Amino acid sequence: MVVYLDHAATTPLRAQARDAWLAAHETLGNASSVHGAGQAARRLLEDARDAVARALGCEPIEVVFTSGGTESINLAVKGLWLAGDAAAPIVLPDGEHHATMDAVAWLSSRWNAAIRPVPLDAVGRIDAVAFADALPGAGLATALVANNEVGTRNDPAGLAAAAREACVPLHLDAVAALGTVPLDFASWRGAGAGAHGLLAMSVSGHKVGAPVGTGALVVSRHAHLTPLAHGGGQQRGLRAGTPDVAGAAALAAALEVAERERESETARLEALRDRLISGIRSLVPSAVILGDLRDRLPGNVHVLFPGTIGETLLFLFDTAGIAVSTGSACQAGVAEPSHVVLALGRDADDARAVLRLTLGRTSTDADVDAFLAALPEVHRRGSAARAGRAGRP
Amino acid sequence: MVVYLDHAATTPLRAQARDAWLAAHETLGNASSVHGAGQAARRLLEDARDAVARALGCEPIEVVFTSGGTESINLAVKGLWLAGDAAAPIVLPDGEHHATMDAVAWLSSRWNAAIRPVPLDAVGRIDAVAFADALPGAGLATALVANNEVGTRNDPAGLAAAAREACVPLHLDAVAALGTVPLDFASWRGAGAGAHGLLAMSVSGHKVGAPVGTGALVVSRHAHLTPLAHGGGQQRGLRAGTPDVAGAAALAAALEVAERERESETARLEALRDRLISGIRSLVPSAVILGDLRDRLPGNVHVLFPGTIGETLLFLFDTAGIAVSTGSACQAGVAEPSHVVLALGRDADDARAVLRLTLGRTSTDADVDAFLAALPEVHRRGSAARAGRAGRP
Repeated sequence: MVVYLDHAATTPLRAQARDAWLAAHETLGNASSVHGAGQAARRLLEDARDAVARALGCEPIEVVFTSGGTESINLAVKGLWLAGDAAAPIVLPDGEHHATMDAVAWLSSRWNAAIRPVPLDAVGRIDAVAFADALPGAGLATALVANNEVGTRNDPAGLAAAAREACVPLHLDAVAALGTVPLDFASWRGAGAGAHGLLAMSVSGHKVGAPVGTGALVVSRHAHLTPLAHGGGQQRGLRAGTPDVAGAAALAAALEVAERERESETARLEALRDRLISGIRSLVPSAVILGDLRDRLPGNVHVLFPGTIGETLLFLFDTAGIAVSTGSACQAGVAEPSHVVLALGRDADDARAVLRLTLGRTSTDADVDAFLAALPEVHRRGSAARAGRAGRP
Repeated sequence: MVVYLDHAATTPLRAQARDAWLAAHETLGNASSVHGAGQAARRLLEDARDAVARALGCEPIEVVFTSGGTESINLAVKGLWLAGDAAAPIVLPDGEHHATMDAVAWLSSRWNAAIRPVPLDAVGRIDAVAFADALPGAGLATALVANNEVGTRNDPAGLAAAAREACVPLHLDAVAALGTVPLDFASWRGAGAGAHGLLAMSVSGHKVGAPVGTGALVVSRHAHLTPLAHGGGQQRGLRAGTPDVAGAAALAAALEVAERERESETARLEALRDRLISGIRSLVPSAVILGDLRDRLPGNVHVLFPGTIGETLLFLFDTAGIAVSTGSACQAGVAEPSHVVLALGRDADDARAVLRLTLGRTSTDADVDAFLAALPEVHRRGSAARAGRAGRP
């Protein structure tokens, strides 16, 4: 049995989501069809939309179901920018998710969008002053509600207020925050923002126990947005395609349970996390916990082990039956330094020497014990491997 | 119990697809993760890719999993055109699916793509000579393998040969054909086509008993294509986002069964369809079966009832517990004439007076009997309503 400490990558399907998914398939019909069978499917879809809206603090009509976080982010970033003034720059904080960075990079390379970067502070929080300074005249700003690697939470209400004041469309990436951080689109957006300020917010289903392939983008009723997928005009014309009723029902079910359990689960995860952190510190005194120690995602531990390579530690833990992450992309066996850790002001060696441990619904004290039991030997071997490699001619 | 004659809109989930979906969730892991749990998910995904490739006649690496037909079509049409010469026109036959038409319309309105229309013949088949004549110098051509409304089959091998000869990238929309028409991407594409000819083929899962929200785009390894969704570089960088392993496994399972049952199921559906057609003709002698009577989708009956409004007939059948379709978009209660029927050379009255009946896996003789039993009274009332409306001042 694997000790799974990578819940931020994906987390097990909830029984309630599975049951909702199966139950929805008892209703046969395309929710776009006019007949009674189609309308029954449509009712399931709209019930799901209502439930998702309640969890995200928006109106049901503002919920656009998507195939997940990456689609939501691409739809928001490209959709808002392409619908606006093509000459206006994009405010892009450092350390955003790859979906955001790569969507913006495409707008830049293909459509000449200018990019205004915003630095993070040493714990990975978006510099609020620099963010506000970058806004005037921008065509789009985007920001993480909480950083998916180092777990640091931002101040979405404050970022949204700055965007509203500067009359700049804002997208919030709430993928990593969903399920543990209370999301309140309407209150963050504020009254009277019109076609500016917070206009869109991305979430993904499989981070909270809904199936992979489910997600949503909250799109303010005041937003103008170019769709990625054109077609039958479904979902306000913003996302064509036969609506995935079963997926929407499963997402709604998962969010309802996550919301109900949020407070107790947050306390439980924080206790596990703090045991992990103190255990790591006592076993490896050189280890550095990155990110904000207090205002962070409850299940996230992001740790720098100086003089190691995170990828090597990952493999050693994997051999010991423990699944962890480096939190960064690894392509073709080359361990890339984490762009988030670089954005904290760390060098490339440090940015390769990190592990992300993320706890979730099924995590237990036994998981923490197993990790801490394996850590000394893994760290010893990982340090030796690194020293050996560094010593090679 | 509803008599469901709208299988082309969506068809029930197959038990094998449901079981594959549930079984895949026993494996916990993000297929992009490096650890053993992730690699187990990755193996499931690649097994599914192999199975889908076998069903579509392509190489596994050419299968890009998507969220469904609309995404596949948008990715192919926009992706191929945007990656090519922005000044080159698009060859667009009449009567294509809305996803294709609307994606092309967007390229036209937003990026000034010129459109070269190609007429259909009187049974709804793409005019092969006009298609070939439109190709020289085009940047993209697209075509249906079989028309989703009137059911007429095209000659994909012939269309692909013409595109190959003209050195024009071709996308085939196989959404309506999947499951009953044998698809053979590699042989249609032919040898030595390089970066031209047939480059992409769209399919959707929920038309063959896989879940809504699953689908694939076959993308030739020689194709250059701009993705819709940027991000983590998954699936050859063509479709970022956490791969939906369970959805892919369900799609593979549904396709394997559909392929195994194709010949016997085709014969069964054709027999039901021919009973429907002869029954309609004997009960309503004025009815006209549209589309090619022989070379059509086995489960498709597309019928014109002169002097009626299809929408009215749909509602009358619905009241009788029978789900049928007009095969055209209906927005805000306004019955739009079918663009496909218009493309057959019929007038707008005719294009509003059609019904599409589509049989599928769960269709029985009893369904045919129920439709034919209800038809005379529905037709009488529908004709009276139309005559009454026409007679109003």
